[in-house]
Amino acid sequence: MLKLQRLFTKDNNFWSQLDSLLAWDTLSDDTVTQTVRDILQNVRRHGDAALLDYTRQFDRRNVQNPEELIIPKQRLQQALRDLDNTQRQALEQAAERIRNYHQHQKQKSWQYTEADGTILGQQITPLSRVGLYVPGGKAAYPSSLLMNAIPAKVAEVDEIIMVVPAPDNVLNDIVLAAAAIAGVEKIFSIGGAQAIAALAYGTATVPKVDKIVGPGNIYVATAKSMVFGMVGIDMIAGPSEILVICDGQTNPDWIAMDLFSQAEHDEEARAILVSPDATFLDTVQDSMNRLIDKMPRAEIIRTSLTNRGALIQAKDLNEAIEVANFIAPEHLELSIENPQAWNSKIRHAGAIFMGRYTAEALGDYCAGPNHVLPTSRTARFSSPLGVYDFQKRSSLIMCSEEGAHTLGQTASILAYGEGLSAHAQSAEYRTT
Amino acid sequence: MLKLQRLFTKDNNFWSQLDSLLAWDTLSDDTVTQTVRDILQNVRRHGDAALLDYTRQFDRRNVQNPEELIIPKQRLQQALRDLDNTQRQALEQAAERIRNYHQHQKQKSWQYTEADGTILGQQITPLSRVGLYVPGGKAAYPSSLLMNAIPAKVAEVDEIIMVVPAPDNVLNDIVLAAAAIAGVEKIFSIGGAQAIAALAYGTATVPKVDKIVGPGNIYVATAKSMVFGMVGIDMIAGPSEILVICDGQTNPDWIAMDLFSQAEHDEEARAILVSPDATFLDTVQDSMNRLIDKMPRAEIIRTSLTNRGALIQAKDLNEAIEVANFIAPEHLELSIENPQAWNSKIRHAGAIFMGRYTAEALGDYCAGPNHVLPTSRTARFSSPLGVYDFQKRSSLIMCSEEGAHTLGQTASILAYGEGLSAHAQSAEYRTT
Repeated sequence: MLKLQRLFTKDNNFWSQLDSLLAWDTLSDDTVTQTVRDILQNVRRHGDAALLDYTRQFDRRNVQNPEELIIPKQRLQQALRDLDNTQRQALEQAAERIRNYHQHQKQKSWQYTEADGTILGQQITPLSRVGLYVPGGKAAYPSSLLMNAIPAKVAEVDEIIMVVPAPDNVLNDIVLAAAAIAGVEKIFSIGGAQAIAALAYGTATVPKVDKIVGPGNIYVATAKSMVFGMVGIDMIAGPSEILVICDGQTNPDWIAMDLFSQAEHDEEARAILVSPDATFLDTVQDSMNRLIDKMPRAEIIRTSLTNRGALIQAKDLNEAIEVANFIAPEHLELSIENPQAWNSKIRHAGAIFMGRYTAEALGDYCAGPNHVLPTSRTARFSSPLGVYDFQKRSSLIMCSEEGAHTLGQTASILAYGEGLSAHAQSAEYRTT
Repeated sequence: MLKLQRLFTKDNNFWSQLDSLLAWDTLSDDTVTQTVRDILQNVRRHGDAALLDYTRQFDRRNVQNPEELIIPKQRLQQALRDLDNTQRQALEQAAERIRNYHQHQKQKSWQYTEADGTILGQQITPLSRVGLYVPGGKAAYPSSLLMNAIPAKVAEVDEIIMVVPAPDNVLNDIVLAAAAIAGVEKIFSIGGAQAIAALAYGTATVPKVDKIVGPGNIYVATAKSMVFGMVGIDMIAGPSEILVICDGQTNPDWIAMDLFSQAEHDEEARAILVSPDATFLDTVQDSMNRLIDKMPRAEIIRTSLTNRGALIQAKDLNEAIEVANFIAPEHLELSIENPQAWNSKIRHAGAIFMGRYTAEALGDYCAGPNHVLPTSRTARFSSPLGVYDFQKRSSLIMCSEEGAHTLGQTASILAYGEGLSAHAQSAEYRTT
């Protein structure tokens, strides 16, 4: 028996109930912090030697020479050739669709010339070198590799340096095949905080990068947040979430399975359904009870839905949208009639899946948009991973003689107002 | 006598010398960290009461009621009316130019429809509420207020909540006037870590925001980095820097003053000149010695140039550009003939000032581009503050029945490959 908590927007304390449900404080663990700090410092000081040490210790590998940490490109091509044909086709189709979608995100330099000949603009350039962290073991997802690497390729990043641990010398061949499809330039079989340190500081063997992206465990996430500033990083992801808004007209089994697909990620995942139709909420609850036992990951689903899931009864769809904007969910399904009339009311969401046919799972793999999305209500201020995360901008200013004269007078007044005389004089020199 | 360190690219150890010169480790101070942690926790728990406490203590103000922390809008309008006319015109011209430039950065939602009717796109929305920190006292710069607030206005952020401390009940009237020009919605006279806490958690009086921007001292910066994740923040800025590349044909006094204008910010500021012309480096050194004594901030300039400045002799302009890309400077002046033939070789820079007439100081105030720029080599992976920092994106996916069928098959193969059956089945339900 699987029973989700039921909330009612009409209750006086609904919004505070919802707020408590969503509470998610990432606790910083002092032991982890200290361990990671030591690892970073050791790799920074001792480079490859420290990398080898940690790899022997944490990955139980008998490595003696830094060259043993390099995974040659032929190994990737071999993995791709050995891949079962159905899997290969699926991966290649997904890669192709992801590439096509992300092409639309590519930004171009622009400039304009003013009447006096002054030119203003913005020059947009790709990052030079990006580090891509790929987890080893059971959480090694080829889809995640494609989602992280392809936007960087579309941005025309010069070089993607991938790191993936090989605990007990085991590597996941589908992940290597995905790396071949994505066109990753260099791979090293290292993981954990030591891999993040190598990417941030560089060693004799591992090149220093400008930004590090990709998911990882608490050690990896802590290391990323510590090297931030020296290199760029992507968002530190919280547990995955879905909010489904349904008008009650979608097949309840479909909705139940959509909630399961989110809940099966891990015990901390969150799945919430909002509907104005009380009977429909009951029906979906019934569907879940009927379907749960057939799920290979039933225990995980049960735990996350019981502890962190909810069925919310709203007055109408407008109120359901209000709930969505409050939650700012990572994934939002609008399983309603004519969703295009509603999506412009959504202020905060990582990705919006519109219409009854758009299962969230399609977005995880092959629809095209990125599956790296803002979690834990951060969609209020951040965006899906995209090509823009691998491009950066430089302002361009080129004053004509006349422009320097006019602007110099204004700048000089403001600079003196702020007590900065050298600023003022540097501008005035060009006003004569 | 002012003497800058001289480096030569032809020296064998030039790049490591340059690397050492640039080294800048922000030391985390444990006392500051603990103090800020306590302040955040107190404001989170006790709201307005804690705000009043800290404001009495740190700003020496006898405040008893949270309403005393509100600066009414009439006060801003009054400051604007009282402003000297020349200053007001200069501020309004600057605001107008900043607004015009930033309009070019505004991003629009897009979507496309595939052959089978599936729609993909990205919906772009403004942030709802932004907090703007403005320092009190001597570092209160009206230009900085314009640079932070105007991009948010152009992005159509619903509400800008500004905080500015009023130590001993003193407020800077030019800053208030600038707030009126920028169109800030609400202002509170609070500062320090307590103001950041109020913006991040909200109190009965101060609304909770989605992102906090604006410069501040070490307490403010530490508080911002601690609330990051709960709210968005802008980059934590390091000391300001300029790299001037000159072919030796610009008036050496102009270049000397450009270096001074950077160096006068504070003792940690950095100003470097690169030229292939050794005689020109000497001439600029002479100009500096002749001009330094007339500078009101001569002592600051002397300290920063002596400790952190440099004159670099390069073989040619190509090598000078290589130096620029290594440094990834916040400000880069290309004081050379035909700069447009060279700027595309610049890979990393916050802002590029092209041609002999474009003093960096124009960019600080009124050229139009933002003066909030990536420092400490972070231009390798980050961008000037812009409208894009106040917009965010939601992916849009709407599958047709046919699209759900095709994509569902691919998704299902990949989901089973990753051991996620509920994902697979959620997709398969829509393939029939």
